Amino acid sequence: MKIVVQKFGGTSVDGAERIRNVARWIIERKHEGYSVCAVVSAPGDMTDRLINMAYEISKNPPPREMDMLLSTGERISIALLCMALHEMGEEAVSFTGSQAGIITDTSHTKARILEIKADRVLDALKKGKIAVVAGFQGVSVDKDVTTLGRGGSDTTAVALAVRLGAEYCEIFTDVEGVYTADPRVVPGAKKLDLVSYEEMLEMAATGAKVLNARSVEFGRVYKMPILVRSSFTRASGTWVREVPENMERPVITAVTYDRGESKITIREVPDKPGVAARIFSYLANNNINIDMIIQNISDEGTTDISFTVSKEDTDIAYRLSENIARELGAGAVEVDRNIAKVSLIGAGMRTHPGVAAKMFAALAEKGINIEMISTSPIKISVVIREDRVEEAVRAVHDAFLLKDDQVYEEREI
Amino acid sequence: MKIVVQKFGGTSVDGAERIRNVARWIIERKHEGYSVCAVVSAPGDMTDRLINMAYEISKNPPPREMDMLLSTGERISIALLCMALHEMGEEAVSFTGSQAGIITDTSHTKARILEIKADRVLDALKKGKIAVVAGFQGVSVDKDVTTLGRGGSDTTAVALAVRLGAEYCEIFTDVEGVYTADPRVVPGAKKLDLVSYEEMLEMAATGAKVLNARSVEFGRVYKMPILVRSSFTRASGTWVREVPENMERPVITAVTYDRGESKITIREVPDKPGVAARIFSYLANNNINIDMIIQNISDEGTTDISFTVSKEDTDIAYRLSENIARELGAGAVEVDRNIAKVSLIGAGMRTHPGVAAKMFAALAEKGINIEMISTSPIKISVVIREDRVEEAVRAVHDAFLLKDDQVYEEREI
Repeated sequence: MKIVVQKFGGTSVDGAERIRNVARWIIERKHEGYSVCAVVSAPGDMTDRLINMAYEISKNPPPREMDMLLSTGERISIALLCMALHEMGEEAVSFTGSQAGIITDTSHTKARILEIKADRVLDALKKGKIAVVAGFQGVSVDKDVTTLGRGGSDTTAVALAVRLGAEYCEIFTDVEGVYTADPRVVPGAKKLDLVSYEEMLEMAATGAKVLNARSVEFGRVYKMPILVRSSFTRASGTWVREVPENMERPVITAVTYDRGESKITIREVPDKPGVAARIFSYLANNNINIDMIIQNISDEGTTDISFTVSKEDTDIAYRLSENIARELGAGAVEVDRNIAKVSLIGAGMRTHPGVAAKMFAALAEKGINIEMISTSPIKISVVIREDRVEEAVRAVHDAFLLKDDQVYEEREI
Repeated sequence: MKIVVQKFGGTSVDGAERIRNVARWIIERKHEGYSVCAVVSAPGDMTDRLINMAYEISKNPPPREMDMLLSTGERISIALLCMALHEMGEEAVSFTGSQAGIITDTSHTKARILEIKADRVLDALKKGKIAVVAGFQGVSVDKDVTTLGRGGSDTTAVALAVRLGAEYCEIFTDVEGVYTADPRVVPGAKKLDLVSYEEMLEMAATGAKVLNARSVEFGRVYKMPILVRSSFTRASGTWVREVPENMERPVITAVTYDRGESKITIREVPDKPGVAARIFSYLANNNINIDMIIQNISDEGTTDISFTVSKEDTDIAYRLSENIARELGAGAVEVDRNIAKVSLIGAGMRTHPGVAAKMFAALAEKGINIEMISTSPIKISVVIREDRVEEAVRAVHDAFLLKDDQVYEEREI
């Protein structure tokens, strides 16, 4: 049995006409000889509307009830999609996350998949039926409805593809694939045909919205090829998959940006062993995710420590930082919400020195000041003022990715 | 543990303010010392909107997918109500039909409850929590989502009350109780304080919308007292419960009407044994519910048979009747959609002759022709022209139920 998992996002299932369009994509794969398992999100802005209904009633709704509420949107999508498929003469069966055997832990609103008991889905596929599964949701080991957090439908799709032994996972969205930069910011941005898991992970972590990082990580671990494409056009999309080491690859793949973080600085932290560990384990224990961390050299026995957190976590991270600063006898805590992060990603930069220098020069030429720097083997991120972010993305894109051929020329630097 | 089950209909949970109002009703019972299990319907017209979405996609949606779709509304209600209760400082847990252990047969869109595995609900109540259960839905023995048909939330509530051993079941709706007639048709209609199960069953079967007949039947079999009241006022409502035989009771309880039926007549049916059985078992095998049946005396070896069916079933019942008429060598089949049924209900009429005569006289006085008559020990129904129905209801109500004291005076006839 040759299986493909197809995932359709919220805009793809918003209204009867779009649902019929999705049904046609599924039937196309079926006619190619695949057994099809489709994963769908809630229609349009339904999840946002449900969240608003909840906040009209409670500022702090219990996470278990939030999951009960938010899991309804996908159930509407799977039922309507099955109706459309039946109308076109195909047998289709809908499955909630629970019915599809998506077993999760009990972390409501951000549950992790523990295992997939795929018997019912496999049984439907074996009988020649199309299986339509609600994305974003599962059932906990306590038998409660859970959700996987924003973008969780991608995770459902890739995890199911792995569990079912699918040939590949096709993710339909409202853009035509993965681009060298956000086309709204860089009009000359180009669609990429192929991106490695590692590059896609760095892109997702640094602001690219097209794929959820957890789904890419699932794909990477189990080597599941992912095809990202639009449900509204026939454009060929972008493959996210393993790239052989010896294949000729561009040095730089893409430029990304993220306005979603703030910077917190703790002044005059006593410079002795274990201090950084105490700060960041205290924050971690309170569920604050830290992105970048910078510690300057010591000056008269104290140092300044800066780090970035998501904008939503800023208030609570600030309060926690004040607690720990008091405890450590450190100085003032400062918050800066007007920052943005610009990142350059490319698997080829590992073997090409000079990429960072060229990126910094491109920013300096525009008079853009760099406030923090963080690197990985395939990524360079800089923090700059938020109001310069689009200019910075264009400058970096121009320097590395402007011309079609330049992407490959970079190898010769 | 003293338990009450409270059921809130769709208008009672339509919007944040009404949901908070429902939460206050629940907390009021809790403060009276009850463990509370609440059953809720989908908010407002959500079920109708979902049905419309389905019919935009398919004229004949698969029942299993229809149930998947329609079960979402109640899930939204239970989640939001639990949030409102938490906001007011009460611990509450929501349960889908499946989580509440409502096990049904596999008749999608009109499933029957087979058993209730109430462990999770009882466990929540024992821990002092409020249990909030999605009405109208269950899970089939095949582990598929099912719905119980229109008005199914009442059935969920009464069945749960029975299973939990509740003291009573309180059904909140948008009217203040059960009336002697529809107050929109008869301005002088009075709210009843007490109605027996049998009377309520006849009323539900003859057009009263306030309670679903299946829920009353559940109440009757298990002697579960039901209190029908409005969630929007403090009015005391109507008790539906066992009435001791020796208690002084009015002869007539209420007048009801139903515009929802059509009349089908098969002409010149051969008058021999077994013919009626063949007609009505053929219709029953095709899932057509028959209400009234009239067979006139034989004339030259043939007879005319008339019966009434719901307006929705009329087209298919007509086609089936033509089949069976052909097979039996009967004459033409006629359909009349412009009929209405007016019924007089009262447990006391068993022991009071003359009730039928008085009803027919009241109609004759207004020049309203009676086309069919059907009686039970506690009910008289007549079929008349649809355009005379409101006039007929008022005439019959005036004859039996006009004055406050007249209800009891009737005993002396």
